[in-house]
Amino acid sequence: MLKVKPERFLDDLHHLRSFGAAGVGKGVVRPAYSPPDIAARQWLAERMAEAGLRPQFDPVGSLFGLVDGPSLLLGSHSDSQPEGGWLDGALGVIAGLEIARAARETGGPPVSVVSFQDEEGRFGVTTGSAIWSGNLALEVADRQTDRMGVSFAEARAAMAHLAGKFVDPSQFSGFMELHIEQGPWLSEAKEAVGIVTDIVGIRDMRITFDGEQNHAGTTPMHRRRDAFQGLARFNALINERFRNVVSPQTVWTIGHVALHPDAHSIVPGRATFSMQWRDGDTERLSRMETVIRDAAEEVASAAGLGLSFGDMLGLEPVPMDARLRAALCESADTVAPGRWRQMQSGALHDATNVARLMPAAMLFVPSINGISHAFAEDTDEADLVTGLMVLAGAVGRGSV
Amino acid sequence: MLKVKPERFLDDLHHLRSFGAAGVGKGVVRPAYSPPDIAARQWLAERMAEAGLRPQFDPVGSLFGLVDGPSLLLGSHSDSQPEGGWLDGALGVIAGLEIARAARETGGPPVSVVSFQDEEGRFGVTTGSAIWSGNLALEVADRQTDRMGVSFAEARAAMAHLAGKFVDPSQFSGFMELHIEQGPWLSEAKEAVGIVTDIVGIRDMRITFDGEQNHAGTTPMHRRRDAFQGLARFNALINERFRNVVSPQTVWTIGHVALHPDAHSIVPGRATFSMQWRDGDTERLSRMETVIRDAAEEVASAAGLGLSFGDMLGLEPVPMDARLRAALCESADTVAPGRWRQMQSGALHDATNVARLMPAAMLFVPSINGISHAFAEDTDEADLVTGLMVLAGAVGRGSV
Repeated sequence: MLKVKPERFLDDLHHLRSFGAAGVGKGVVRPAYSPPDIAARQWLAERMAEAGLRPQFDPVGSLFGLVDGPSLLLGSHSDSQPEGGWLDGALGVIAGLEIARAARETGGPPVSVVSFQDEEGRFGVTTGSAIWSGNLALEVADRQTDRMGVSFAEARAAMAHLAGKFVDPSQFSGFMELHIEQGPWLSEAKEAVGIVTDIVGIRDMRITFDGEQNHAGTTPMHRRRDAFQGLARFNALINERFRNVVSPQTVWTIGHVALHPDAHSIVPGRATFSMQWRDGDTERLSRMETVIRDAAEEVASAAGLGLSFGDMLGLEPVPMDARLRAALCESADTVAPGRWRQMQSGALHDATNVARLMPAAMLFVPSINGISHAFAEDTDEADLVTGLMVLAGAVGRGSV
Repeated sequence: MLKVKPERFLDDLHHLRSFGAAGVGKGVVRPAYSPPDIAARQWLAERMAEAGLRPQFDPVGSLFGLVDGPSLLLGSHSDSQPEGGWLDGALGVIAGLEIARAARETGGPPVSVVSFQDEEGRFGVTTGSAIWSGNLALEVADRQTDRMGVSFAEARAAMAHLAGKFVDPSQFSGFMELHIEQGPWLSEAKEAVGIVTDIVGIRDMRITFDGEQNHAGTTPMHRRRDAFQGLARFNALINERFRNVVSPQTVWTIGHVALHPDAHSIVPGRATFSMQWRDGDTERLSRMETVIRDAAEEVASAAGLGLSFGDMLGLEPVPMDARLRAALCESADTVAPGRWRQMQSGALHDATNVARLMPAAMLFVPSINGISHAFAEDTDEADLVTGLMVLAGAVGRGSV
């Protein structure tokens, strides 16, 4: 029977935090390919080797700790947001390491570990696992740049001396990822574990209203074609109409707004904004798209505005593998009876990509007050250990 | 009796357009202190001298064409917007030149002329006349910078070889400025002239809603404190409540919006935006301020947002001098009976500043389709001449 050591797990987790420690709470600054990120991966490779795993970096810096022959794959990512928490990604990597180590020590099933590179999207979205899974071609990724104009090709060159080949995914029977929730549901309900049913689908596009740029002093209200007023009306309209369409889990966001010319004394001639919506149900995502396009067209037509839609990014919902998920639920019921639930993931994760290659599943532990992507991100250590135990229990069942 | 020559006036107006001609329609690119602006002012000084006026540049490059002894002052500005029309400012300067010239030729009253510098606000707002009138201290102006970081002190050094002393305003009995309307009212009504009753007052401030920056995938709608949603609600509320407060001439504008962090996948944690409103009535401006502050506080309180108001810029409405205005109205009724009106100015003008020093008045000619601050700005030449004749008629009355 697979027997993990919670103290060793927590020690490793705290040690990983020392790479790029922000000096603010438990926060870390460890973006992909930064010196602390590379140093952390080299330390992880050593810990894998100590555990009897064979470390292998792939060409983009994703680090695998492999056993020989077929195995289960556990892990997540060890890069952080520019201002990140200590658990986002790190938790799943160190939990995987502890379970792989314990499996070797105590005669559990063969387990390999992975820390994917650039999950936080310095160069895209879940870059390392997207490339590994074939979701993103390496040549395309190499041309992508970060906010400072550094290309992915330039950035990954910093790890060229460590790089090996891509790891053959056919050796893995499945993938499981422990992660913090990054939302408030478990924390609000005072539950310890969430077993993910599916990772939501995302629709994202830019919308532009074109009005007439004009003098804010001499243009009477009845003569204006104010692009910002178009945006405000559109926002009110979709908020109203979504009521009949959404579930409590559905979310939608206008997070980016650019007015032109963006001056106090000029009636806005153009408003470009982002419209993003997420849900686990493809049908609902489509119904929301219809509401959005219809509302924008009605507003444009009523206000005499031009309207254009940018390309729509569409990521389909990804259901978690039924067998792995059932194993996690059984384990949760043993380890934390009455203190777990099944739930959607509103965020993307490496598991989204890996699910293309093999059966994949995820479980969450609570984020205190739902805070993530911030130095203040945290989880009670008791809950971290509960998450580890639930995952270990599912692995130890042997049925996975 | 003062007798102007419309063809000479139009010839000079078209010649001035050749300085900084944009090559797009009749547009000009002649911002303050640019080589075309300085060249245009030197040409104007020559034309003034030819007309028997004594040209004098002041320390900031405003150009006066003076007669000896007491006189009436006519004029406007000859600098343009970065992408400007051929009439904005230029019309009032050339009309003043023609009337001063005609007055000397035909025995009219003594008339001096001015072209103020930087009315278009490369360094502030109506900079040259603001300094001359004492509205803006020269030392303060010298520290102001344009969008490229050039200081006013550096820019005006380009005219140092031309600069004389500040002109003593006590020699002028009054100021009259002919300008294009820059709005649609005269053009819509097919009228030729508007006599300005007052220049509207302006209130302008920044407002900030502080919410909670959060993950757009994992933060449920009921847990969000979305600063952009606060702005949208505020906008709807003031639009509704202003109905009971405003007149058809009142205008208000949200022209600038900055979200933070302004990303597709992040619930906006902060929204800072401009709120500007204009009206001829100080009482109404105050009632609107109350609506704005109350609405912002209600929205913030209902949505759990922080709220802060920036400093409020307040420019009081400036009524035009009753005697000068009456002379303009009498003249308009003679020159263009049934084709003129009295109206507010929604834009600031040099007359706003000059009114601190002496009786001041303004008249407008139509802007075709209300277009201004654009290459496409234009006015029928017949209307330009009508404006000239109305102004000349008021000057020739001798009562001004």
